[in-house]
Amino acid sequence: MRLWGTVENPPLDPAFERLNASLPFDRRLYPQDIRGSIAWARALARAGILSPEEQQAIEEGLQRVREELDAGLFLFRPTDEDIHTAVERRLSELIGPAAGKLHTGRSRNDQVATDLRLFLMDEWPELEGGLRALEEALVRQAEAHPDLLMPGYTHLQRAQPIRYAQWCLAHAWAFERDRERLQEAFPRLATLPLGSGALAGTPFPIDREALARELGFQQVSPNSLDAVSDRDFVAEFLFIAAMIGIHLSRLAEDLILFASAEFGFIELDPAYTTGSSLMPQKRNPDALELARAKAGRLIGHLTGFLTVLKGLPSGYNKDLQEDKEPVFDTVDTLRAVLAVMPGLIATMRPRPERMRAALEEAMLATELADYLVRKGVPFREAHRVVSALVQEALREGKALSALPLERMRRHHPAFEADVFAALDPEAAVERRVVIGGTARAAVDAQIRALRARLAPADSQ
Amino acid sequence: MRLWGTVENPPLDPAFERLNASLPFDRRLYPQDIRGSIAWARALARAGILSPEEQQAIEEGLQRVREELDAGLFLFRPTDEDIHTAVERRLSELIGPAAGKLHTGRSRNDQVATDLRLFLMDEWPELEGGLRALEEALVRQAEAHPDLLMPGYTHLQRAQPIRYAQWCLAHAWAFERDRERLQEAFPRLATLPLGSGALAGTPFPIDREALARELGFQQVSPNSLDAVSDRDFVAEFLFIAAMIGIHLSRLAEDLILFASAEFGFIELDPAYTTGSSLMPQKRNPDALELARAKAGRLIGHLTGFLTVLKGLPSGYNKDLQEDKEPVFDTVDTLRAVLAVMPGLIATMRPRPERMRAALEEAMLATELADYLVRKGVPFREAHRVVSALVQEALREGKALSALPLERMRRHHPAFEADVFAALDPEAAVERRVVIGGTARAAVDAQIRALRARLAPADSQ
Amino acid sequence: MRLWGTVENPPLDPAFERLNASLPFDRRLYPQDIRGSIAWARALARAGILSPEEQQAIEEGLQRVREELDAGLFLFRPTDEDIHTAVERRLSELIGPAAGKLHTGRSRNDQVATDLRLFLMDEWPELEGGLRALEEALVRQAEAHPDLLMPGYTHLQRAQPIRYAQWCLAHAWAFERDRERLQEAFPRLATLPLGSGALAGTPFPIDREALARELGFQQVSPNSLDAVSDRDFVAEFLFIAAMIGIHLSRLAEDLILFASAEFGFIELDPAYTTGSSLMPQKRNPDALELARAKAGRLIGHLTGFLTVLKGLPSGYNKDLQEDKEPVFDTVDTLRAVLAVMPGLIATMRPRPERMRAALEEAMLATELADYLVRKGVPFREAHRVVSALVQEALREGKALSALPLERMRRHHPAFEADVFAALDPEAAVERRVVIGGTARAAVDAQIRALRARLAPADSQ
Amino acid sequence: MRLWGTVENPPLDPAFERLNASLPFDRRLYPQDIRGSIAWARALARAGILSPEEQQAIEEGLQRVREELDAGLFLFRPTDEDIHTAVERRLSELIGPAAGKLHTGRSRNDQVATDLRLFLMDEWPELEGGLRALEEALVRQAEAHPDLLMPGYTHLQRAQPIRYAQWCLAHAWAFERDRERLQEAFPRLATLPLGSGALAGTPFPIDREALARELGFQQVSPNSLDAVSDRDFVAEFLFIAAMIGIHLSRLAEDLILFASAEFGFIELDPAYTTGSSLMPQKRNPDALELARAKAGRLIGHLTGFLTVLKGLPSGYNKDLQEDKEPVFDTVDTLRAVLAVMPGLIATMRPRPERMRAALEEAMLATELADYLVRKGVPFREAHRVVSALVQEALREGKALSALPLERMRRHHPAFEADVFAALDPEAAVERRVVIGGTARAAVDAQIRALRARLAPADSQ
Repeated sequence: MRLWGTVENPPLDPAFERLNASLPFDRRLYPQDIRGSIAWARALARAGILSPEEQQAIEEGLQRVREELDAGLFLFRPTDEDIHTAVERRLSELIGPAAGKLHTGRSRNDQVATDLRLFLMDEWPELEGGLRALEEALVRQAEAHPDLLMPGYTHLQRAQPIRYAQWCLAHAWAFERDRERLQEAFPRLATLPLGSGALAGTPFPIDREALARELGFQQVSPNSLDAVSDRDFVAEFLFIAAMIGIHLSRLAEDLILFASAEFGFIELDPAYTTGSSLMPQKRNPDALELARAKAGRLIGHLTGFLTVLKGLPSGYNKDLQEDKEPVFDTVDTLRAVLAVMPGLIATMRPRPERMRAALEEAMLATELADYLVRKGVPFREAHRVVSALVQEALREGKALSALPLERMRRHHPAFEADVFAALDPEAAVERRVVIGGTARAAVDAQIRALRARLAPADSQ
Repeated sequence: MRLWGTVENPPLDPAFERLNASLPFDRRLYPQDIRGSIAWARALARAGILSPEEQQAIEEGLQRVREELDAGLFLFRPTDEDIHTAVERRLSELIGPAAGKLHTGRSRNDQVATDLRLFLMDEWPELEGGLRALEEALVRQAEAHPDLLMPGYTHLQRAQPIRYAQWCLAHAWAFERDRERLQEAFPRLATLPLGSGALAGTPFPIDREALARELGFQQVSPNSLDAVSDRDFVAEFLFIAAMIGIHLSRLAEDLILFASAEFGFIELDPAYTTGSSLMPQKRNPDALELARAKAGRLIGHLTGFLTVLKGLPSGYNKDLQEDKEPVFDTVDTLRAVLAVMPGLIATMRPRPERMRAALEEAMLATELADYLVRKGVPFREAHRVVSALVQEALREGKALSALPLERMRRHHPAFEADVFAALDPEAAVERRVVIGGTARAAVDAQIRALRARLAPADSQ
Repeated sequence: MRLWGTVENPPLDPAFERLNASLPFDRRLYPQDIRGSIAWARALARAGILSPEEQQAIEEGLQRVREELDAGLFLFRPTDEDIHTAVERRLSELIGPAAGKLHTGRSRNDQVATDLRLFLMDEWPELEGGLRALEEALVRQAEAHPDLLMPGYTHLQRAQPIRYAQWCLAHAWAFERDRERLQEAFPRLATLPLGSGALAGTPFPIDREALARELGFQQVSPNSLDAVSDRDFVAEFLFIAAMIGIHLSRLAEDLILFASAEFGFIELDPAYTTGSSLMPQKRNPDALELARAKAGRLIGHLTGFLTVLKGLPSGYNKDLQEDKEPVFDTVDTLRAVLAVMPGLIATMRPRPERMRAALEEAMLATELADYLVRKGVPFREAHRVVSALVQEALREGKALSALPLERMRRHHPAFEADVFAALDPEAAVERRVVIGGTARAAVDAQIRALRARLAPADSQ
Repeated sequence: MRLWGTVENPPLDPAFERLNASLPFDRRLYPQDIRGSIAWARALARAGILSPEEQQAIEEGLQRVREELDAGLFLFRPTDEDIHTAVERRLSELIGPAAGKLHTGRSRNDQVATDLRLFLMDEWPELEGGLRALEEALVRQAEAHPDLLMPGYTHLQRAQPIRYAQWCLAHAWAFERDRERLQEAFPRLATLPLGSGALAGTPFPIDREALARELGFQQVSPNSLDAVSDRDFVAEFLFIAAMIGIHLSRLAEDLILFASAEFGFIELDPAYTTGSSLMPQKRNPDALELARAKAGRLIGHLTGFLTVLKGLPSGYNKDLQEDKEPVFDTVDTLRAVLAVMPGLIATMRPRPERMRAALEEAMLATELADYLVRKGVPFREAHRVVSALVQEALREGKALSALPLERMRRHHPAFEADVFAALDPEAAVERRVVIGGTARAAVDAQIRALRARLAPADSQ
């Protein structure tokens, strides 16, 4: 640490100093760094290493440093290599020699890991809240249009009618899994490395569990060498973020399609599109395209950081300094997208007439086969019968429902007058009453389940 | 599905058929496919769609298909597009028309997702067991050499003495986090998609919760459209595997270094190295190099599959067929490495004399500073004092411990006769008695904690 | 090398043998391995190390080994660790002691690098040919429909009319860049490592340049240590493949959209889609979905292999064995997709009426602004004028072309009777006569340029 | 484009505006944007769309805008969405209505692609120069120590003696391949998209080839739709950068090992390491660790951007806005590392005594076998003979060279008095006189070849 350097140290190549300097990005960690240092000073005091007066002076000094940083009045110096040395340098200017006791029994190795964990612990509720808001917007769309039908797609081909609400909720459930992953990863994130020293553990009698409680950690790291090497929490966060990115890209892709002239299922609010007054009908879904693209960026951060870790020996290696920028950019990216998507979802308007028009009767041929199955015909036979019927209708250029019952009965005697009801999309949808199905009752049950999960009590 | 195709279907381009065919890899899913079909037949029976006799016939038929596949006697046909159609085709040959009822209310979309989940549910205990065995081997090394010291490294520079056991346990704790991730991801994996049909839910009154219980799933998917689109469980598995890969690559890198002539800390058992009779001293650590390299492969699978998912619209898209090969190769890769590493760890022999020789006294300068701190000198002042002492010793080419006490006291009066004990590596290690530290008691506590977690009761 | 091993070698852990064995995948390199060995034997003979008779015996023996392998009659043994040892073992069975001279001055390190380079050199024309066929199919589509117009899109919004041919050629040019990359990378690929020994160079007077010529290499590696470490050619191939994958995914995405019911611009030949006789109108574009997804797989291989290389020290490390499987799978993936796409493109049918119907007049507002610019009105003013006009038409629910000239002139006096011609899509397209534009002449020039590049003389 | 927007446009959600704004990063493109606009104005003048006076006014206005930006005096406004609109807005403030003609026949789609290509064209010589400097430093190390021997490694095991110069040059050749890739990719990069309009080509008679020459492009894009969609040049740059990163990580890994206490082959200059005055012997190789880690970052950018491209339809999509940040960060990363590495290499000092001490005689057993081969013994037999000899020496704890000739002759009569010369590392190295070998002459030839390539004439 340069702070403690002596004149014997030769000058560094300025290009190396620039490469090495982490201050341009790690200054963002100052609130966590100061919070961690205050807690450390208290722990040192509890261990008898600082007198109450020293601890008090350090704490007040650190508060002042924080105020200067908050107010933008902190003067960084060229010799401030990183945020840790900058804070400590300023502290010693403010309170004198007592500052020289703060770093007792601590190393930058355990300090920096602690800071980054605290940073993410602070971000967790933000991300969780962003996901929650997006889920709520989706649920509200479902609630607002419970009986609106649209085509469900496989292979981007119209396959079966579903409720628009079912489509909304499908996306909500995916984000709900992301929230679940965030919650499960939290205890691993909230594991305190402080007290591990450079790699072997601090040689002073620090009560690490009290320190953990004070800082909001849920547990203490069980092995000092592991504690300074471990960046699982970074990789795990980047993965969860990449999954959120994947889910956002899927939602975005659906909506870009639905908002196109060709599909026309959705009208995006102009507040979320760009356009030109020359072509007012052309509303570019920039927000959605960016949401889709960000998945690539997030996957890039995950891959890049895993690659940084690959093949590193244990102990602290400077390579680990590459953990901060992907974390910061990932946090900023998710925040930016999650700030937009709930509003976009809340304000978009489905276009029932376009959805209805897309519900071709041909999507209901399987309903006819299922009709026969219900009459006791084996599925394979039912399939063959309806297949022949479809071919016949096709040859004659007729809709299935335009075939007289007698014609149907020529194909199979199980057809009866109630067959035409099978060709009603509403009825088709209502038959899917199984858990997770697209019938009204099944959809309502999903809404209730999601509402329960999203209720404030569910939050940590 | 070709199985149900009719003559009207024109012939496919053979090159397209080859591209499309998943049988070469998905045949591996036959045990899961058949298990799923048996459960589905029972569910259809419970729903009144199959008679008891039909269900019985289907179940017995499927058992026979499985026996043929187990015995390698199953004859695949060129028209068998995938394992699902192959099994059903054979079933209908064996039991006739009743087979035609099995696919009632089911789609390949929910079927294939169910099969792949079942496959991974079967693999979970294997992976978990492989990790457990590796952790146990590491713990046993720690237990076998509780008092062996070695240098701990930062930046690949000798930094502080630690126990060899501390190094062993550092790696064990990382794999323990991997086990934890496996356990947490299990309920999301063990979520039943069957009953979701093509995308809208099955139109028959299937009791999905009973079906889930029968197949060992812990919950049912809450939304049919989500259920057929969702491959989170694949991505999550690939991520956990990549993290295991990262941890294996770190362990491997450490050991490749330690086994080199230059470090010489570890002797690998010849059963895990290759060499040439010409150069018997050269033992190539192939197993470790492969373990290190596989991290790249696993990261590649994760990245590749996330990229497949990026930007896909919801619903089943054929792109999702790309889920199986990375899953299979990842499972095989981890199995192969985890089959080797526990034995390699169990049989390697530390070389105490080489470790001891590497414990330079220069690693203990911080101990001297901490000594002064304990005497009441502020850390920064202590640092400056010892720094000057170190420079002086360096100029004179002497070891610190070779400086007479008087010389030390000229630098600071707090030095007393007990200072030389501070320069003992054993004592330095024993001062790290904090939780997670490298003192004997702290290491023993880690061993107890890991043993408790590894005890059979901990397994699911 | 086990082949030369002696009884002193202890038995390996069978799990390690399985992990280490590369024969299951590297057996595929036997043609290259044998070709390389034949050339090596000739080089040894030229260097006086083999007598003409020995060289002759080795060459004939290797030919027999190749015949056995070609015919599937080669019996691999459990002790055959890789293809190199298998071939040499069999050679010594066939020709006796002379086989023991083949490996003189060679190492598996330079041998395996040579084999893999030869393999890719063999594949290069295949890939190049596949791309050429695809480009030709695209050019032929362009030629067949020179005057067909369709909407061009930005942000998936209809933006301006273009020729269908322009769309076809846009994709062709991207693949042409891929061909260019293949050609440029070839000399780096075709660099001979053989003669580099294990890492220091062969100690025998081998004429490496003659050896290179004999095997079709274009140059010899300039540094032996680099030669055995260098896998740039693998990474570069995987990158070029990933770019091809990206271009295929873009083409596939366009066509999946165009083949949907909603766009309806393209009808895919049934030979390249799957469907069900129940829903004959639903043609699943599986081939295109797989082509799109494979980009993920290819990116995964690239990323994975780069990660394998990251941080490796120089010299041969076993990690490099991970080069073969991504190469093989990438070759197979591209071959499979490129075997399908030319036929799919050649047989697809554009649907002029759907394309025409999608050419809304609203896409021509910019034409009106450009019309005014041509009359001398500054672009910004023209833009404002037309913008007001568009708003007015919109309010009145009229098409622009339905506004009488007088109304237009009230907005700007530069409007004259020829304004209505500006609202003709044909005329709009024909104004883009600049190089690369969508006018007929510009498109024809592109076709001529591509045809010239695709002519056989262009091939290497 | 907001610049031309009218009051009818509703307000955007501020969160969407923030997400959408590219000005925070694309402002960096202003020199290229202005250069491109000046050239465009000249092209419009040549096409008769601008009068000479208008063109003159625009050009002078743009020069002033550039000066304001250069001087940091440019006032950005909240409504400046990106650098293009900011420049044009300011231009219109400066010169009035004539500014309104600049955007004639141009679109942001072709403009932004042109800007980014110009940016990279500007960076190319910088990167090329950085690589050249690094290669020169490596060559100079080779020249300075032509006769210094060290162990060459395979599997991180000492394998054969090589010249230190051979090791230096191995790395230089790898960077030379990177320079080659940069040079080959340049023509594809220097392809002008301007004149392609939004996607269909500009409707004005622009001489695109003259425009290309004016801006330093080597060719014009052949298809307007391809021109606005194509980001191959970005991906190709990111790949070349990732390869440079891989090569840097290999060099860094070697040097981190060589600079460790255990290897001790290299002493890094203190200007490139960090340390503590407490432990002066501990010089942390931060620069090298960061160089190694940056490979991960660069691979992440490559992967991330390829993933952005995957599955995008053709035409401009907002997703493409994600091209700039990875390009900028990649450029900055490479610049930062390449600013450090040449100095680090130039100032490092090999430690001949440590290298010499590591040259164990056991590395020369293959020399003995080759000796016998040279005496006419088949390689396999020679291998067996020496193997037995080695085992014998090992059992007796003797060096090979300590065995009397008679003992050797008992193993094989071909051993003669000159055998001991075979066990000399110098002689072993000098036998590798083949092209690329480690003999002095072969190394000198490499140096001459590299010097010739690095000579200024080689630069573009």
